[in-house]
Amino acid sequence: MPAADLFSFASRVRERAPLVHCLTNLVVTNFTANVLLAIGAAPAMVVAREEVAEFAPLANALSVNLGTLDVPQSRAIRAAVDAANGAGKPWVLDPVAVGPLAFRTEFAFDLLDAKPAAIRGNASEIISLSGGTASGRGVDSTAATDAALDAAQVLALKTQAVVAVTGETDYVTDGRRTIALSNGSPLMTRVTGVGCALSATVAAFVGTASGRDEFWAATVAAIAYSTIAGELAARDAGLPGSFAVAYLDRLASLDADAFGKTLVQRDIAGS
Amino acid sequence: MPAADLFSFASRVRERAPLVHCLTNLVVTNFTANVLLAIGAAPAMVVAREEVAEFAPLANALSVNLGTLDVPQSRAIRAAVDAANGAGKPWVLDPVAVGPLAFRTEFAFDLLDAKPAAIRGNASEIISLSGGTASGRGVDSTAATDAALDAAQVLALKTQAVVAVTGETDYVTDGRRTIALSNGSPLMTRVTGVGCALSATVAAFVGTASGRDEFWAATVAAIAYSTIAGELAARDAGLPGSFAVAYLDRLASLDADAFGKTLVQRDIAGS
Amino acid sequence: MPAADLFSFASRVRERAPLVHCLTNLVVTNFTANVLLAIGAAPAMVVAREEVAEFAPLANALSVNLGTLDVPQSRAIRAAVDAANGAGKPWVLDPVAVGPLAFRTEFAFDLLDAKPAAIRGNASEIISLSGGTASGRGVDSTAATDAALDAAQVLALKTQAVVAVTGETDYVTDGRRTIALSNGSPLMTRVTGVGCALSATVAAFVGTASGRDEFWAATVAAIAYSTIAGELAARDAGLPGSFAVAYLDRLASLDADAFGKTLVQRDIAGS
Repeated sequence: MPAADLFSFASRVRERAPLVHCLTNLVVTNFTANVLLAIGAAPAMVVAREEVAEFAPLANALSVNLGTLDVPQSRAIRAAVDAANGAGKPWVLDPVAVGPLAFRTEFAFDLLDAKPAAIRGNASEIISLSGGTASGRGVDSTAATDAALDAAQVLALKTQAVVAVTGETDYVTDGRRTIALSNGSPLMTRVTGVGCALSATVAAFVGTASGRDEFWAATVAAIAYSTIAGELAARDAGLPGSFAVAYLDRLASLDADAFGKTLVQRDIAGS
Repeated sequence: MPAADLFSFASRVRERAPLVHCLTNLVVTNFTANVLLAIGAAPAMVVAREEVAEFAPLANALSVNLGTLDVPQSRAIRAAVDAANGAGKPWVLDPVAVGPLAFRTEFAFDLLDAKPAAIRGNASEIISLSGGTASGRGVDSTAATDAALDAAQVLALKTQAVVAVTGETDYVTDGRRTIALSNGSPLMTRVTGVGCALSATVAAFVGTASGRDEFWAATVAAIAYSTIAGELAARDAGLPGSFAVAYLDRLASLDADAFGKTLVQRDIAGS
Repeated sequence: MPAADLFSFASRVRERAPLVHCLTNLVVTNFTANVLLAIGAAPAMVVAREEVAEFAPLANALSVNLGTLDVPQSRAIRAAVDAANGAGKPWVLDPVAVGPLAFRTEFAFDLLDAKPAAIRGNASEIISLSGGTASGRGVDSTAATDAALDAAQVLALKTQAVVAVTGETDYVTDGRRTIALSNGSPLMTRVTGVGCALSATVAAFVGTASGRDEFWAATVAAIAYSTIAGELAARDAGLPGSFAVAYLDRLASLDADAFGKTLVQRDIAGS
């Protein structure tokens, strides 16, 4: 993809400030909101079952994260997803720790029928979600992302969602087109919520798409934008406390020129 | 108001470390606690219905925020408000996103009967709470604060609460006296929870008042103190990640001299 | 204890990245996860009653914090503690604000029978938990730690847990051996969650112990490591916003040499 085309999604987010409805986990709510504000989107954490159906149609996209799922939240998520679908708003699934934990895994499989616009996870999560057996230990992936590439393509074809597997190399596929992105920094794994907030960023970008055919490019753009900001932030700060601050600053200030110069992408032959 | 009189409330907070009982939303609990610690207050997030009534009388003030209201929290808030009132402790209401969402809007109207000492919101929220129709989209206000000035005065007279409408210009009114404050920085809207934590700061300041007649001045002082800290922090840091850090540092270190030199206020004719 | 022996626990944490299952309070989840990542551990906030029993055996240690306890969380904690005990995994109790609040106090006493590996609290909390009457006001301790030393030793002997009372001086005792640590900075009390995250750090260190007889030394090491990081961070940053950032950076970078040069310890005669 031309860097300028990818960056244009970031420009749209800044111009339109898409309202992103987030149902996410307890650990990362604050950081997710700050990431969305930094990229120019507007976060909205409306979480009660009594309110989600009313709110989802007002938002531009919905971001669902299963990190601290419990029964009340599973009901709220289901209601929010149905309302988003009813209103034609895209929604994004982050299947945190799906695989080893039965309750969330069963729920995640149920959600696959509700047509997510995109799914973003680590290798273990995407392998599990595609029906394979992965070796995660909770939120950590012990598999490299290229081991999950086939699974990602299978999952994309089965669900018609864009699937992003993130790690040292990130793959984004819609089952036909697949791109590998190689930006980022190991420091991104030393700050909690960077991955979860990335899913919300995908929702923000997808929320500015003019149609389903732009979801793949919007997802590529969201991941490229975030990992390039992370890579540049790691030049500013080498330790995790100050890296988190620098990451937000870079997300808020990354321009097309630095984006284009830093982007490392590679096309992958389709399956 | 003389700047020295306003700053004296901040000095009281530092000397007395008022214990502020917070029932707030999931996004901002951590930042709210850090803001309260920065100004010298003592935060206490006791949230279970089983405990709030026992705890509220031990605190100096109660701060209630409806940002992620659900049914269990609404019961805990009601119990906490009743216990605070029973013990003669002031409480502050932050009616996040009241207007477009029925569940919290109905609950907020119920709470108005429970005599809050102060209400702080954006223009859309205050207009909605005064009975008007505003054009918010969740947590964002799409109305300028001066459009809400009349609503604020009406609401203050109806509820006998001090009402603060915050935005580019902040108005604080008890229905008779009204002041306009013009400090702050647009960066305060790029960090999640700055507004919510401002309501908790109002609670801390009001918690040091010697009586109901000081609630208006205490609220003016809390908002002036916070927005001046934000304005000075924006001189230290121009991007949201580092701004959030600088804001906490300025809240912890703002002195009477810098406060007086930076304060921009204007009296407004009463309604 | 020789400084090198204490530091070896920190090295183990960095090498093994113990998975720490946290059931903690709403205010500090994010900061706790970032502290664990900074020291090289892997946080996992699996919180639903449906999942905790399945997850606890996968983790290396469990950290339980009662700061925002409610009925559903109390059930999840009970299930997680039982599963950890069943799987032979150590667990750590942080009895936040136990004493003045009946619901959590009763629950904390129940948990004492479930054989925690370690208990970390402030003076008021440890006095209350040992059966005495303390003068706390919620999360704050109004008692100095030396007033709690006897209580800590009594509690340790009764529960067979290592007991740590933290404050200006920190005491760590197993009822027979007692050490006093005098590192740290007052700024550690100006950032919310430093104490709570310290308990999770104890869990991470205890999670690398080769047996019960190492729990005391592991707890001493965790507290020495954290307070030395805090003391050095206070040299980097004198205000709470920037101190929190510096604290995470120091936790991630503290080396054996700086650790040894900064450590201030003193043996206390056993009871």
